[in-house]
Amino acid sequence: MPASTQPDVMDKLVSLCKRRGFIFQSSEIYGGTGSVWDYGPLGVELKKNLKDQWWKAMVRMRDDVEGLDAAILMHPKTWEASGHVAGFTDPLVDCKVCKGRFRADKLEDARCPQKPSKRPGEAEQCQLTEPRLFNLMFKTFMGPLEESASTVYLRPETAQGIFVNFLNVQQSTRQKVPFGIAQIGKAFRNEITPGNFIFRTREFEQMEMQFFVEPGKDMEWFEYWKAERLAWHKSLGLAADRLNYHQHAGTELAHYARAAFDIEFDFGGTLGFQEIEGIHNRGDFDLGRHQEYSGKKLEYFDQPNNKRYLPYVIETSVGADRTTLAALVNGYREEVVEGEEEGRTVLGLHPSLAPIKAAVFALTKKEGMPDMAHKIADGLRQYFPVDYDETGSIGKRYRRQDEVGTPFCITVDTESVKDGTVTVRDRDTLKQDRISADAVREYLTERLPG
Amino acid sequence: MPASTQPDVMDKLVSLCKRRGFIFQSSEIYGGTGSVWDYGPLGVELKKNLKDQWWKAMVRMRDDVEGLDAAILMHPKTWEASGHVAGFTDPLVDCKVCKGRFRADKLEDARCPQKPSKRPGEAEQCQLTEPRLFNLMFKTFMGPLEESASTVYLRPETAQGIFVNFLNVQQSTRQKVPFGIAQIGKAFRNEITPGNFIFRTREFEQMEMQFFVEPGKDMEWFEYWKAERLAWHKSLGLAADRLNYHQHAGTELAHYARAAFDIEFDFGGTLGFQEIEGIHNRGDFDLGRHQEYSGKKLEYFDQPNNKRYLPYVIETSVGADRTTLAALVNGYREEVVEGEEEGRTVLGLHPSLAPIKAAVFALTKKEGMPDMAHKIADGLRQYFPVDYDETGSIGKRYRRQDEVGTPFCITVDTESVKDGTVTVRDRDTLKQDRISADAVREYLTERLPG
Repeated sequence: MPASTQPDVMDKLVSLCKRRGFIFQSSEIYGGTGSVWDYGPLGVELKKNLKDQWWKAMVRMRDDVEGLDAAILMHPKTWEASGHVAGFTDPLVDCKVCKGRFRADKLEDARCPQKPSKRPGEAEQCQLTEPRLFNLMFKTFMGPLEESASTVYLRPETAQGIFVNFLNVQQSTRQKVPFGIAQIGKAFRNEITPGNFIFRTREFEQMEMQFFVEPGKDMEWFEYWKAERLAWHKSLGLAADRLNYHQHAGTELAHYARAAFDIEFDFGGTLGFQEIEGIHNRGDFDLGRHQEYSGKKLEYFDQPNNKRYLPYVIETSVGADRTTLAALVNGYREEVVEGEEEGRTVLGLHPSLAPIKAAVFALTKKEGMPDMAHKIADGLRQYFPVDYDETGSIGKRYRRQDEVGTPFCITVDTESVKDGTVTVRDRDTLKQDRISADAVREYLTERLPG
Repeated sequence: MPASTQPDVMDKLVSLCKRRGFIFQSSEIYGGTGSVWDYGPLGVELKKNLKDQWWKAMVRMRDDVEGLDAAILMHPKTWEASGHVAGFTDPLVDCKVCKGRFRADKLEDARCPQKPSKRPGEAEQCQLTEPRLFNLMFKTFMGPLEESASTVYLRPETAQGIFVNFLNVQQSTRQKVPFGIAQIGKAFRNEITPGNFIFRTREFEQMEMQFFVEPGKDMEWFEYWKAERLAWHKSLGLAADRLNYHQHAGTELAHYARAAFDIEFDFGGTLGFQEIEGIHNRGDFDLGRHQEYSGKKLEYFDQPNNKRYLPYVIETSVGADRTTLAALVNGYREEVVEGEEEGRTVLGLHPSLAPIKAAVFALTKKEGMPDMAHKIADGLRQYFPVDYDETGSIGKRYRRQDEVGTPFCITVDTESVKDGTVTVRDRDTLKQDRISADAVREYLTERLPG
């Protein structure tokens, strides 16, 4: 993968996210939960916007993809069929001296807690055990007894909920192959080395689509989705030079995959290019395994051609949290402002992702300005998420909105109460238009994509 | 609670929901997962619409409520503070002979498996053990070791994620008491006797809002939210005579509650009136306990009056799944159609909840009708979820849409290709308007609430 040419803004972003209510450490008052995060008032809107954009592009705008929301708790046989019970493991080693625990396949990245200049395998006081396999699925017990018979798992991916419902969806919607099933939902992995803020977390959200095709037509659909998905990330403002395809070759390919590409985003600094989405040709591995383990026929009947087959699957799998992080990293910039001593921090989020679409200010608390500004804000709120602010200098208020990515600021000033006009300021160009207060809704509608 | 006057439509609804893709049994090909359900293509849209309506009314349209999305996995101390570790239990008894397990406090509802005419306590072959307490929280282990030190719980309610973030949200948004925090998310309870379709499930979704107020002003806000929340259910079309307040009095009141009302909906048949939302005055119980257990001050500083206090909390807590079920039950009706032999089944969903807003039909596959119909459907898809259908008789197509609650059907017929008009049929009145194809979008926009 190419080296990053972008600066490392992660620490600044973590601090901004907490201060402005995008993302908080989970259960912070109790010292936090390991690598789990809570989305605050602005973060929940940002992530919801991202998910809604994906849903719109993948489900609502298409005739050939159906939505689904399968449960997190599935029948445990699902995970035998999928291979997760046997194979979803990391090899771990313990140090008998320092009690540290490390991934055997990532020892070169690990540091001995007692001698951080050395890797655990190099440090003379570290006596490593033989590697043993550790399953990454969280398990729990359903029903009153804690015993193996009642063990269920928190799903480590949403995909299996789609595979087991393949025929339910196909038959209830009367879809014909090729068609897809899309789903947004939480998944859980008991990672040993999570980290990098919301990039790798133990509880996370996926946006997955499985597209079912006739065998032999799979590579053509694979190429279609590869292009389609990259275009989607660009349409939401991720910079073209921060996006990259990474092809899985040889031993990198998962056992079920006939072909696989990652879409990578350059997070900057040492994190650099990392996967935000995977596009996989899974062949008939999944439907075949579920057919075998359930004893239920999962074949599709192609009526016009009078043939039965197990469809191949092209999967597109996005990490909702890491793509939210990509949008934040991509948008973060610090600018010098001409004629001003202090610079400004801007979150250049795409307007469709911005948590607040417009902020409404009264220049001062006098001369009926707050009344007029409130009226404008209340009128817009029906159509857009808006913010009302009347505290602090107008410059401070602009900065506060820039920093959370609000595309437009509407100010009611002395002229406004006289002639019914307001100024609308653009976050990126800093250009101000003076327009009639009655025209604000139309002005925003034209400039904010749905 | 009043006796139900409504028919029992549950069995018909379960069948319709599977057949048309609203709700499937989870992991059905493996025999199902106990009381867990998957939402199919139409169900996911219905439930998403319901959640979006709640979010709009509770967060986006209000200046005084902020959104949040806290994680499912929280620090385990949370559940000691909340009282769930010690007290979130059901008393269970086992029968040593038949191995049945029953809730000790619900023995009168239970039946001996070997002698169903008798309660377990009455059946001579049932030898019941002493009741023992069984905690309803699902537990799992975070990190590589399965031991008590790494035990975490799947949250049994979303509320605690709001309480532990009270100061994070207040400080990042600069809100002043009174204000609220709202959240939609999954919760999990290892119920012994779940059931009634999606009414009581082990994995479910809540829509909760905690409104923080000054002590002494709590009952006035309690009354405000009680009225506000009932009005919301009515605004989504739930029939006034199927809605009811139920006041918790005396021993029914939870230990933390100063006052509590349920909003009940009449599900018909033997299920009858059941809680779909709870409105609770929780006093300062929650913030007080978290302050005590975390050692962190959670007081609010009221600057203008220069005083510090722990706010009281008014909670509104909706079950998203059971309210989805209420919308389905409320809308289900079978009608005789004048002049036709077969009747029709209608899902009279409120237009804002309907999964498909409009269906577009080509009367026949000839004379350019499909082309014109496709063009109309594609033009509308940008704004509304629409369905395109060209198979079967037009009467059958209308019935298919009636049964899933589609408010409008647009038909392209022989006249359409000549003069550019189409018919728009109303689901409920069956009235048809002939309008210009170019005016369809505006026609729908006027009749479909945002």
